[in-house]
Amino acid sequence: MGLTYQRPFSVPFYESDRFKNMKISNILAFALQVSGEQSVELNRSDVWLNDHYKLFWAVTEYELEINRLPRFMEDITIETEATSYNKFFCYRDFRFIAENGELLLTIHASWVLMGLESRKVERVHDDIVAPYAADKSSKIQRSHKFKKELLNPEVTSYPVRFSDLDMNGHVNNAKYYDWAADMIDYDFRASHQPKKVYIKYNHEVRYGETVEALFEMDMDGLTSHHKLNGNATEIEIEWTKNNDE
Amino acid sequence: MGLTYQRPFSVPFYESDRFKNMKISNILAFALQVSGEQSVELNRSDVWLNDHYKLFWAVTEYELEINRLPRFMEDITIETEATSYNKFFCYRDFRFIAENGELLLTIHASWVLMGLESRKVERVHDDIVAPYAADKSSKIQRSHKFKKELLNPEVTSYPVRFSDLDMNGHVNNAKYYDWAADMIDYDFRASHQPKKVYIKYNHEVRYGETVEALFEMDMDGLTSHHKLNGNATEIEIEWTKNNDE
Repeated sequence: MGLTYQRPFSVPFYESDRFKNMKISNILAFALQVSGEQSVELNRSDVWLNDHYKLFWAVTEYELEINRLPRFMEDITIETEATSYNKFFCYRDFRFIAENGELLLTIHASWVLMGLESRKVERVHDDIVAPYAADKSSKIQRSHKFKKELLNPEVTSYPVRFSDLDMNGHVNNAKYYDWAADMIDYDFRASHQPKKVYIKYNHEVRYGETVEALFEMDMDGLTSHHKLNGNATEIEIEWTKNNDE
Repeated sequence: MGLTYQRPFSVPFYESDRFKNMKISNILAFALQVSGEQSVELNRSDVWLNDHYKLFWAVTEYELEINRLPRFMEDITIETEATSYNKFFCYRDFRFIAENGELLLTIHASWVLMGLESRKVERVHDDIVAPYAADKSSKIQRSHKFKKELLNPEVTSYPVRFSDLDMNGHVNNAKYYDWAADMIDYDFRASHQPKKVYIKYNHEVRYGETVEALFEMDMDGLTSHHKLNGNATEIEIEWTKNNDE
């Protein structure tokens, strides 16, 4: 296993949702921030990666296991660790931990290195990842199997707005969860929590596009399937009723 | 003048816009966070205010004077100070300061105390505000005069989404700036910075509503006028060309 990096965090008002839970989109955004901090500490910052290899990191997949969402004003610790890597993928975990040591949630993230000019996935060089002390492995982890086709989905359009963009010039990764979950009925959101979240990014979306979002709830009434712009981003959320362990 | 409260901050990736500037909506959200921290420190937290008076704070107006926006990863200090108050209004300033002491921007904010049950503006009790050591004054500061009517505005609709809400159950204050500025042409955003921003909140907006947003650029081509849901929120932005002091 790799080196761990930790930092404390207190959930602010503006990252809390209607029901005082930390927003999933902010959980993802902050996790990215924390891994960036570890990279700076290990002298492998985005600037370094750009200057030395003309590469940048991109997340291809997230898997969240949520025991309980962090609450407004709760003091938590976020821990991250690059767990392993192979020719093309690097795997990193994030753990959100309560003050009493309780594990609130885990994020498993898969990353690739993209060429700044080629805009294609490039090979992982040992020199880039060595400082994280992750295990080298020939094993490529299997992706989550998303539902191939939604049979009778609800459809919404989201025009991409300036405020949706990050400095890479495309829609910020964290935005897609909001677009997906915003299609779900308010009363359902009030009475349910996400327990597992799978997100797969296949293509970026840029300013000027309008995202067509499809959503369908499973027959079980507890699994929502989402497709944004065809298969550009696929999301699956397993929900659990509040106070129903 | 009142007691000041300071805290350091580093601008994260996900609060930076397409052009690596800290997003105005995040500037406003974070300022609110910092004043909340001061209130906790002075034993006048939102919880205290609720328990003792069944009141809560609401911002009615912002005025931003921007010399330069904080940049991605920039280390800054945010300072806040309750400057004065009268029968109904409390005034508070925020200063965003660069590492070299340069004043990046100032926010002047007007606040009222609202009754949790009455949903009306209530009188300011000395007991609530005394710890901040702001000046008591009979003078009610004049509001900015917004353009009364937009003659030939562009119109857009924003359905209120779950992710737009905060834990008060209405659209988060910071959201309106994004809705307003998102109507402005991308190339204009790329070549201009906001220099002054005036925001006035007259009515809250709730889930299920669709916000009708009006926008018109002044004849000078450098002042944008925005009205959201009639006069629910009024915004005026003075822009300046990049590298054009």
